[in-house]
Amino acid sequence: MSQVLGTRARKASPPKRAELHPFEAAVLETVRRRRLLGPADSTVAALSGGPDSTALVAALSALHRAGEAGPVIACHVDHGLRPGSERDAAHCRGLCARLGLRFAARSVRVRPGNVQAQARRARYAALRAAAAEAGAARIATGHTRADQAETVVLRLLRGAGARGLAGIPPRRGALVRPLIDRSREEVLAYLAARGLPALEDPSNATGRFLRNRVRAEVMPALRRLAPAAERALARAADLLRGDDRALERSARALHRGKRAEVEALLAAAAAVRRRVVRRLWKAATGSRRGLTAEHVASVLRLLRRPRPGRISLPGGVEARVAGGRLEMAGGRDGNDCAPARALL
Amino acid sequence: MSQVLGTRARKASPPKRAELHPFEAAVLETVRRRRLLGPADSTVAALSGGPDSTALVAALSALHRAGEAGPVIACHVDHGLRPGSERDAAHCRGLCARLGLRFAARSVRVRPGNVQAQARRARYAALRAAAAEAGAARIATGHTRADQAETVVLRLLRGAGARGLAGIPPRRGALVRPLIDRSREEVLAYLAARGLPALEDPSNATGRFLRNRVRAEVMPALRRLAPAAERALARAADLLRGDDRALERSARALHRGKRAEVEALLAAAAAVRRRVVRRLWKAATGSRRGLTAEHVASVLRLLRRPRPGRISLPGGVEARVAGGRLEMAGGRDGNDCAPARALL
Repeated sequence: MSQVLGTRARKASPPKRAELHPFEAAVLETVRRRRLLGPADSTVAALSGGPDSTALVAALSALHRAGEAGPVIACHVDHGLRPGSERDAAHCRGLCARLGLRFAARSVRVRPGNVQAQARRARYAALRAAAAEAGAARIATGHTRADQAETVVLRLLRGAGARGLAGIPPRRGALVRPLIDRSREEVLAYLAARGLPALEDPSNATGRFLRNRVRAEVMPALRRLAPAAERALARAADLLRGDDRALERSARALHRGKRAEVEALLAAAAAVRRRVVRRLWKAATGSRRGLTAEHVASVLRLLRRPRPGRISLPGGVEARVAGGRLEMAGGRDGNDCAPARALL
Repeated sequence: MSQVLGTRARKASPPKRAELHPFEAAVLETVRRRRLLGPADSTVAALSGGPDSTALVAALSALHRAGEAGPVIACHVDHGLRPGSERDAAHCRGLCARLGLRFAARSVRVRPGNVQAQARRARYAALRAAAAEAGAARIATGHTRADQAETVVLRLLRGAGARGLAGIPPRRGALVRPLIDRSREEVLAYLAARGLPALEDPSNATGRFLRNRVRAEVMPALRRLAPAAERALARAADLLRGDDRALERSARALHRGKRAEVEALLAAAAAVRRRVVRRLWKAATGSRRGLTAEHVASVLRLLRRPRPGRISLPGGVEARVAGGRLEMAGGRDGNDCAPARALL
């Protein structure tokens, strides 16, 4: 279900750094400051054909020609969710031919159910496969500062803490977001300046209902109050990402795998204690999902009991306090409880 | 400029806890869970005459009669900013007579300039004076969950991190906010149920322009997307307050007064390092104000230099690195730099 069309880069003389468009120079600044790409890292860039991803592949390819980034392979993923979605692929292929960019097209199937989450998972899997095939060190997506600000609002509406409000990570493993400091206006101005055509944000059609309402209704209201609202929200995300990282580091020092010392936990700050419980859960189940704030609170109440105790958590996991230790056992990765329970 | 009218509480037989109105029971739950008031603590409650503060004094006085809280003294502060503001004081006096509550009225003068901040400072000073006079252990204000959610939005618009986004502290020193978990709708329903009259939010007139726009424009947009938006924002504030507290605790362990060890700082997470710099600044100047993120970044750059270095900060403060130590000196509380500089 995948095809890779190698379109050789045109032989263009590499422009000097001074010749970069201001947008490209700004992307380079982000890439350096946030350490997204090494100067030689080759990158698979996700290309939907919408404005953001079009600006992404164009800017990265300019950085490559300027000797500031490695080679770029644009990868379009067709989710097959809309009739005519293959036309988007054709548009992207044409764009890459014009830009002298290597192009890869992949098709994925999304089963019925939570289409949005599935499409996302399938897309990232396809991008990873394309990166592996191309031997690319990085996968770049076109998330902008606007996406970041919208994500902060969406997470706020769920009552998230620092972890959730940290929003879209500019870098996570091989994934990087070189446009994370750019506004939508900058993207559109860049496309206009370079005469690059873009599709009308095809990704908007794949079930991003709440996000689209944040964009259409909340962000304008915030901007009317504070013109720099988007920048402020993105700045909050950056600060909270740093805060979350520091707290996770403190939490990491307080457990080994699925076990933690009760005394050390009780001496820690409550926010760190809660994170330790979540880390134990992840060690036991292999995932951070499925543990609510109420679960965390009941595990922590165990610590205050004068005697050993245990409580049941979802998926057959059990939290136990005994011998001065808190331990989580019985999850998928557990090895001292009947593993069959977790497989049900 | 102050008068205290002692209106003796009517002798009413204390109702049992079961007789508390659901709003009062909910306030009691907040008071207990957040440890705002001991069962015997006497409290000065700020009373503007608006809905929130009216509900506050009524609920606290019900808790007192039920034996769940100490005696309450309502205190109205007249800022003299609007013609007819003395009528608000008369309204509050009448209300307290009806509720059988002790009542204190205070007038303050606000000089021209930043009226909003000055009024706030004058108001809290007057409340503190009233508490001292009455021998009250606590000062309660009528901030609700709506105020909390609005504060989170306001701080977001400034690009705040966990500290700012933690919003209104439910408890800080003697100050407590027993209505911090109540919505405006709950407040209005309670007032209606008890037949208590309230002025049309007099505090709204004192320069709360941006907050009023958040209330009128942003909160409705958020609520249209997620009916529980206010609760979610308040929950985020609670989580971030816990996170901030944990980070401040880590930072506290890394300095003594105006000095910190460079090696320990470099080993710490960036978010903790930044907080240490802010704490050194506070130790040197007596206040957290006046240090920007850029200042913090330049102090932290000193740490990476191979040789001793120093930089100038506002107000004659200097940050120096020498002998493996970072030190801030020269501020108001400095004692090893010419103190005259800081007095200019």
